[in-house]
Amino acid sequence: MNLTAQARIEALGFAPADAAILAAHFEDAERQGRKGHGLARIDWLATLPDLDPAARPERTVAEDGYERWDGRGALGYLTMEQIVRAQLESPPVRTRVVVASDCFPTGHLGYWTRRLADAGLAAVLTCTSPPRLPHPDGGEPQIGTTPLSIAIPSSDGPPIVSDVSMAKATYGDVLAGRATEADLVPFGGTQAHKAFALGLGLELLVEALAGTDSYGAVLLVARPEADPVPERRRRASGARLPGDRGA
Amino acid sequence: MNLTAQARIEALGFAPADAAILAAHFEDAERQGRKGHGLARIDWLATLPDLDPAARPERTVAEDGYERWDGRGALGYLTMEQIVRAQLESPPVRTRVVVASDCFPTGHLGYWTRRLADAGLAAVLTCTSPPRLPHPDGGEPQIGTTPLSIAIPSSDGPPIVSDVSMAKATYGDVLAGRATEADLVPFGGTQAHKAFALGLGLELLVEALAGTDSYGAVLLVARPEADPVPERRRRASGARLPGDRGA
Repeated sequence: MNLTAQARIEALGFAPADAAILAAHFEDAERQGRKGHGLARIDWLATLPDLDPAARPERTVAEDGYERWDGRGALGYLTMEQIVRAQLESPPVRTRVVVASDCFPTGHLGYWTRRLADAGLAAVLTCTSPPRLPHPDGGEPQIGTTPLSIAIPSSDGPPIVSDVSMAKATYGDVLAGRATEADLVPFGGTQAHKAFALGLGLELLVEALAGTDSYGAVLLVARPEADPVPERRRRASGARLPGDRGA
Repeated sequence: MNLTAQARIEALGFAPADAAILAAHFEDAERQGRKGHGLARIDWLATLPDLDPAARPERTVAEDGYERWDGRGALGYLTMEQIVRAQLESPPVRTRVVVASDCFPTGHLGYWTRRLADAGLAAVLTCTSPPRLPHPDGGEPQIGTTPLSIAIPSSDGPPIVSDVSMAKATYGDVLAGRATEADLVPFGGTQAHKAFALGLGLELLVEALAGTDSYGAVLLVARPEADPVPERRRRASGARLPGDRGA
């Protein structure tokens, strides 16, 4: 299965190393049950009008507390991979904010935050994407599905990895046939204004920091001062916590 | 009304300048319709066993990209006020993460983020508080109501200020008699696992950065590179956007 996915991606023009990055992400999404971000995306890549398999992201600012990246036409998955590798290679002394423009699509965000948490770093990641969700009062789509993922490492086991979009169903769910366009609304039912406000706020944050000319991402990476997860697992008395399925 | 609130707070032992800070916050909450964080909190302060009106927060680390604060027994409102003033006085070159421990209660978070956005800074703020919300499967409370506020400035009018808790109703609503303990669950109905995951992730982030010995807060302050709000207001065609009531 690994070879097949990689071969299909290479057939789109990607170098083997890049195809391996993409295949690893799609296969992880399948394992996590996030099929909308999974192998179905390979066919979807082939439909992208601006697909440039040779494009390479660039880090344009590198400070201990701040990095700026530009996708330079590369798929967001590849930009995120380089960002994650750069953080693992050189973690911040305390905290670092990483701002990426021209960074789309970014896939399922828990894939990136979990890898940082597996290395002992706390991570928070959000991103922008095409407008899919209307205002709770109705009308045209105003915001993307706007995921937010937070991963916190643990001294005694896998990290806790939350990864939540603000949509009742994701566009990936629609692509995969498990939801309809009518489910592309903010989640929460009578309190959908909450998910809409969260999504709009996160989206504007990315736009304010990364610019409005492209889709982007904002990542916070931090070296923890404390180890709160073991106590939380104890308090949860065995209940499944976010990210446990993918651990 | 201002004098009355201030006088009532001074009667608890607070110096006039601190009482003015607290009164301004409570009165803003009333104006915003967030009565659970409003004047009813003055009587609540009197019930706090450890209330120390003379306590003063301290900034223990001050770097351009990172600050660390300790409430040192002060009310969280007063710690947040000093944090906000410090950011306004010396904004970051790009981004700054501010981590506060012993910082409770912090009130309605939009009060703090809006003031940063009114000065042209993007701001994201979350905080911890006593456990109120159970896991979606039921059981004892696991997480606080865990608000997240995001404020983004605008070149042509008031900022957009989202300020959302992960609870169906806040503890403030319960204190104010507008909700019951049964409403202290994650919002979202059949998708309450999303609000629970967001709240747990945010809470663990604060604990990982601020420590687990006290309630804390994490603030991201950023100098925007772009001005996305005017276009969003145009696209919203007059629909009310988060924070407009308080503008």
